[in-house]
Amino acid sequence: MAQSAVQSAVGWDRSDPGAARRAIRSQGYTGYTAGIASGCVQANVCILPRAWADDFQLYCQRNPKPCPLLARSDAGDPRLPMLAQDLDIRTDIPRYHVFRDGELVEEVTDIRRHWRDDLVTFALGCSFSFEEALLDAGLRLRFLERNQVAGVYVTNIDTVPAGPYRGPLMVTMRAFKPADAIRAIQITSRFPNVHGAPVHIGRPKDIGVDLLRRYQDVGDGEVAEGELPVFWACGLTPQLAVKNAKPPFCITHAPSSMLITDLRNASLAVL
Amino acid sequence: MAQSAVQSAVGWDRSDPGAARRAIRSQGYTGYTAGIASGCVQANVCILPRAWADDFQLYCQRNPKPCPLLARSDAGDPRLPMLAQDLDIRTDIPRYHVFRDGELVEEVTDIRRHWRDDLVTFALGCSFSFEEALLDAGLRLRFLERNQVAGVYVTNIDTVPAGPYRGPLMVTMRAFKPADAIRAIQITSRFPNVHGAPVHIGRPKDIGVDLLRRYQDVGDGEVAEGELPVFWACGLTPQLAVKNAKPPFCITHAPSSMLITDLRNASLAVL
Repeated sequence: MAQSAVQSAVGWDRSDPGAARRAIRSQGYTGYTAGIASGCVQANVCILPRAWADDFQLYCQRNPKPCPLLARSDAGDPRLPMLAQDLDIRTDIPRYHVFRDGELVEEVTDIRRHWRDDLVTFALGCSFSFEEALLDAGLRLRFLERNQVAGVYVTNIDTVPAGPYRGPLMVTMRAFKPADAIRAIQITSRFPNVHGAPVHIGRPKDIGVDLLRRYQDVGDGEVAEGELPVFWACGLTPQLAVKNAKPPFCITHAPSSMLITDLRNASLAVL
Repeated sequence: MAQSAVQSAVGWDRSDPGAARRAIRSQGYTGYTAGIASGCVQANVCILPRAWADDFQLYCQRNPKPCPLLARSDAGDPRLPMLAQDLDIRTDIPRYHVFRDGELVEEVTDIRRHWRDDLVTFALGCSFSFEEALLDAGLRLRFLERNQVAGVYVTNIDTVPAGPYRGPLMVTMRAFKPADAIRAIQITSRFPNVHGAPVHIGRPKDIGVDLLRRYQDVGDGEVAEGELPVFWACGLTPQLAVKNAKPPFCITHAPSSMLITDLRNASLAVL
């Protein structure tokens, strides 16, 4: 009954990744993707001209924690069959950001008129997947209860450059009591394709982070009494590296409006 | 050449667990066991009368992190063939502590004259095994370089009682930079039979620990600038529980003079 109530409210079954993509494709849904098709992998997306693609792939290979590459399309091919058979990257993301020379110029809900034969799509893992594993294990993510995302910070750690791509490692912060922090490290270690184990724990200043200064005020930075801040590599790292590289043309997903795939989060576990 | 030098210095091959046991059995060696038969499991030992054994096994079952039970003998049988075919618990530990009514009454190098038909031997995993895995992974344990052991502390966390056995959880502390602490959590998680993952990180006071107050001044409590203290359950926990229970008779290994087995440390890894 609960599910039909949801269905009738939005016109499609929010638990079905294919139904979600069809709703998005027809522009029946243009919002945030958190909570949709739970259990399925959602991906960060970066679309670049062919001439800018190989260096980006190298950048991902050299920085696998912030840039866990799930799939790369062939040039000009809008499909990503490894992620879903019916997937069309030109229509299946709720909102896209279009960049020219590193500057955001447009937010759109469809990129068919922007599509070119030389465009290459990169889909990267995102922390939604490991957050599900943390919740399943009984850990509490307080920011989710406030409809927030984890706090985002720029560190003083440089990523390994590749061609024009370079920049600082960005991180997300989640706060836990110490024993839960240990459990969170164990759980996320099983998911290297979605940022994997944390990169830091407990001493934010050592990585150049002031907990009060979130990147563009994104997310929740609260650390309650008795908790330790735990830091994971963040998918905004490659976005910042692309911004720094200023490719003539680039398209990404809009923040929190991700690509919904048919892959199960649990299928990404290496152990 | 290095190995023969060691052989000639002590008369036996320190890398061979069987040779070590034979030297100990003949009282040719009565010292500490750290560094002997490296790669092989060393065990904490507790020998109790049959009437006191089942509750102790239950205590281990209920508190597996401080009391990881590797083997239990049959009553009166001095052998532990699961740990080594030739092993005789009456002679194969360098030094034993004999307790009566919970009080240490004697330190001996052989317990043949104490042996009784109702004695049951318990062998428990020890942190030497995971320390080897940490070193193999390139982590530094500074206290080893000072020929020290990890600092030992009594926490404010109660173990789960069983029969007469009860008492606080005891822990060992090792200090790491945050990224190494994360790695140490991953590595020791693979070894549940030798205390496994840490029980706490970063906030000693939360578990009732003052880093300056080591239990009986045992071990090294240094936390250098930029490091976090990481706490593992400690094999002294069951020793303290036995002391509290005051069995009429009990024999343990003397501190740092462990039982050397033929089991490989690496064979204990669950992943």
